[in-house]
Amino acid sequence: MRGKAYLLGAVIALIGAAIYVAHASERADGEAAPLFGIKIPPGYRDWKVISVAHEAGNNNDLRAVLGNDIAIKAYREDKLPFPDGSIIARLAWSYVPSEENNTAFGREQSFVAGPPINLQFMVKDSKKYATTGGWGFAQFKDGKPNAD
Amino acid sequence: MRGKAYLLGAVIALIGAAIYVAHASERADGEAAPLFGIKIPPGYRDWKVISVAHEAGNNNDLRAVLGNDIAIKAYREDKLPFPDGSIIARLAWSYVPSEENNTAFGREQSFVAGPPINLQFMVKDSKKYATTGGWGFAQFKDGKPNAD
Repeated sequence: MRGKAYLLGAVIALIGAAIYVAHASERADGEAAPLFGIKIPPGYRDWKVISVAHEAGNNNDLRAVLGNDIAIKAYREDKLPFPDGSIIARLAWSYVPSEENNTAFGREQSFVAGPPINLQFMVKDSKKYATTGGWGFAQFKDGKPNAD
Repeated sequence: MRGKAYLLGAVIALIGAAIYVAHASERADGEAAPLFGIKIPPGYRDWKVISVAHEAGNNNDLRAVLGNDIAIKAYREDKLPFPDGSIIARLAWSYVPSEENNTAFGREQSFVAGPPINLQFMVKDSKKYATTGGWGFAQFKDGKPNAD
């Protein structure tokens, strides 16, 4: 029944984690980030998952990498490099221990997404961003351009 | 330019991680998992992200938790407990260091999704699964029911 224990653990983690991460796209004030002039793309929170990661070190975050339809299609059809119009979103949340799960498991082993840290986008436009490999970059925090 | 360094790091991580995780839904052979009779729901890989997590310990995985439209709607409208028809998917991949990123950063700090480990679903059906709190559970590995 080890599998079932994990499943029940997942339920517990969900309840805790959902406070922060289930929500729709962050509200944007429409302000464009400097350097590349990128705004938060509407509906990015509904994009499909490309990958997940944990950045330790100074960041110490859990992150999801999502892609818009153009990016996902290129990935799935193995048609890289990404075509113009591809947008990759990186959502980062604080990396926090799950007290509920760790109590259930009897040891420190579960880490879940805590409060959001920031949001990054990479936009492919081979002409507009020719000098940076065809990609423009932007970071947002609480809906506003942010350079930290 | 710390922000930009991270963005470029993210590009590198993407290329490495995408080998495993960008693909469409795992092929299912249609076999139902024992106990709860659950099959892999078509198109689950396109569902929206609820949360992400890292399970250390014996699992040592990175996981994404996705929800079908019924589940996501309930979350976003704060209408919990989940209504019948909600399905939560948990995708787990091996937790592996990113050699590319760690080389770029000069230290061990990036962990990305490696090969897939398994796939779990929780299906809400308050009548069918009344004896387990209204939820049925199933685990799959390589498209087949799996109890590990």
